[in-house]
Amino acid sequence: MSAHPIYNFSAGPAVLPEAVLRTAQQEMFDYNGTGFPVMAMSHRSDMFLSILHHAEQDLRQLLNIPSNYKILFLQGGATTQFNMVAMNLAHGFSTADAVVTGNWSRIAYEQMSRLSNAEIRLAAHGGEQYAYKNLPAVEDWDVNPNSAFVHFAINETVNGLQYQNVPKLSDGLPPLVCDMSSEILSREFNVSDYGLIYAGAQKNIGPAGATVVIIREDLLERCPNDIPDVFNYRSHINRDGMYNTPSTYAIYMSGLVFRWLQTQGGVKKIEAVNRIKAQTLYETIDGSGGFYINDIHPDARSKMNVVFKTASEDLDRRFVLEAELQGLCLLKGYKTVGGMRASIYNAMPLEGVNALADFMKDFQRRYG
Amino acid sequence: MSAHPIYNFSAGPAVLPEAVLRTAQQEMFDYNGTGFPVMAMSHRSDMFLSILHHAEQDLRQLLNIPSNYKILFLQGGATTQFNMVAMNLAHGFSTADAVVTGNWSRIAYEQMSRLSNAEIRLAAHGGEQYAYKNLPAVEDWDVNPNSAFVHFAINETVNGLQYQNVPKLSDGLPPLVCDMSSEILSREFNVSDYGLIYAGAQKNIGPAGATVVIIREDLLERCPNDIPDVFNYRSHINRDGMYNTPSTYAIYMSGLVFRWLQTQGGVKKIEAVNRIKAQTLYETIDGSGGFYINDIHPDARSKMNVVFKTASEDLDRRFVLEAELQGLCLLKGYKTVGGMRASIYNAMPLEGVNALADFMKDFQRRYG
Repeated sequence: MSAHPIYNFSAGPAVLPEAVLRTAQQEMFDYNGTGFPVMAMSHRSDMFLSILHHAEQDLRQLLNIPSNYKILFLQGGATTQFNMVAMNLAHGFSTADAVVTGNWSRIAYEQMSRLSNAEIRLAAHGGEQYAYKNLPAVEDWDVNPNSAFVHFAINETVNGLQYQNVPKLSDGLPPLVCDMSSEILSREFNVSDYGLIYAGAQKNIGPAGATVVIIREDLLERCPNDIPDVFNYRSHINRDGMYNTPSTYAIYMSGLVFRWLQTQGGVKKIEAVNRIKAQTLYETIDGSGGFYINDIHPDARSKMNVVFKTASEDLDRRFVLEAELQGLCLLKGYKTVGGMRASIYNAMPLEGVNALADFMKDFQRRYG
Repeated sequence: MSAHPIYNFSAGPAVLPEAVLRTAQQEMFDYNGTGFPVMAMSHRSDMFLSILHHAEQDLRQLLNIPSNYKILFLQGGATTQFNMVAMNLAHGFSTADAVVTGNWSRIAYEQMSRLSNAEIRLAAHGGEQYAYKNLPAVEDWDVNPNSAFVHFAINETVNGLQYQNVPKLSDGLPPLVCDMSSEILSREFNVSDYGLIYAGAQKNIGPAGATVVIIREDLLERCPNDIPDVFNYRSHINRDGMYNTPSTYAIYMSGLVFRWLQTQGGVKKIEAVNRIKAQTLYETIDGSGGFYINDIHPDARSKMNVVFKTASEDLDRRFVLEAELQGLCLLKGYKTVGGMRASIYNAMPLEGVNALADFMKDFQRRYG
């Protein structure tokens, strides 16, 4: 075991707040004096319904979710949402629009056509336009006003891209559908600018296994009757999120993270910390005289996933290994991108980022 | 808090072995000396891959799964499998067969037609034939030899029905597809009698959030290319179960349950205990002179979910409440069935069943 504290820069499943894990440990056999482990509770028991209700309420408070939006905790990850969005919201439409800005929104674009009768049309392609080094401005998206929706990912975990200003569309354009997996709860935004938001929990919310869906009520009318109920948003809403057994423990853990975030001062406060964390790393990169490279356009750099590399793959490998020995873990970049990636979600403390910045400077001194 | 030990008769999410929860508690911050919480591990890290590998190997050993069967831990519960089975295995066939024997196989039958081009035909209907008080014998199933598969549920959690002999079909008939959610690992059977087996974890395997799928390799060739990858068995197999982020903690917990089951002597040993547990309750019911009623045909009574009632709904309510006060919890029957249901999966110790039987006799003395 390392003598250093361990800082986990995994892109997800990612670091969880220590206080949250401690509560989970303490309550393993007895949730809140009930005598029941959360994992062994019937999902229809009053005990679990109370856990679910509080998680929903806390998320609603944290994101200031208006009352005409419903919240679901589903299974299957963001990847399943690619298709649920298309199956449900494109029903009765001849087209839906997709913006491709990196790995995940590209996969969404490719997959969502498969069980949809609507044509999925490209409204913008950041790969063709900018080789994924910058983001197509929302004003330049070629949106079809008659499309069912416009799908995009606000933060690209693999490529390290993020819209600096939270995109919104003009009135009269289709509802925006957003994959917020790797940025939900990291900064303030207006839920009412969106038709549907979804996020796999395992980055900024909790452990893998739960997927948060926030959907504007009127869009539920689009859900067709003839798709399987398990893929139908309305069926889940009509059963209060209990159409089938949800991922109960992942929901419990997410609820603990929501409460932790409240004790941190909420989204506004954590957003300020997140800004400092990202700034610390980008300044280290930009101040390295080219030793560390991040070639994302400054206006599109992600505050959640900071990608960087050195001039050589050998040196990148050495960086990852030496960092690991210092307790700075899981810094290896995504397989198709290479280099390094530091994922610095809400639960990554500033100390971890400072330790990484110090290590980066030290590594440069030794190998630069 | 009760002075009695708590016995949890929930149908699922259900009781977990105490030793398993203890290990989870101990390892909450540090899995096996890695310094990492399981919940915060990247699913692609060597640490988690080792957890997944061992869970697979232990399940393979426990069920004696032949090498031409693949194992997946998916998300979405058994309910999602209703459609994945149809989408994948019925492709290119004009019909698939379904046997309806209770609540869950009825829902499967209704749902699986929704994203399938094949006609789902009824091979048998235990509701029409026996009002769900008995099971259609496998010899009487009207199987179409040209169908893609025959789907059935071996144990009906809601209705308290279970095939006493594990069904198998004659050579030349379509592959059997079985929902084993509430009975997997509770008794021995030959995996090779089946084409595909699936089971939601939250009964006999682990917490909610993982679904085990065991599939015969040759059937993977049927999976069509044009369905979403997240619903495609072959896509999951081709990525070694990592097509998308799996429900990592639920898989870890399932692995702990598998290891616990090995320490109990494996499936053969637990099967003997399960037989005694079921016998204890059915003898109490049958010896009550009609005070307790279970009107399932003796050859079809479930050893996992024992349903019973008294002559009055008022008395049933009183039974459930008084039992709860004695630490005998979550005995209320399913909403559409009423009465009581004691789910006595692997992790329910014999002492819990004996305590329930004693309470039943005492309750009868007082109200009979």
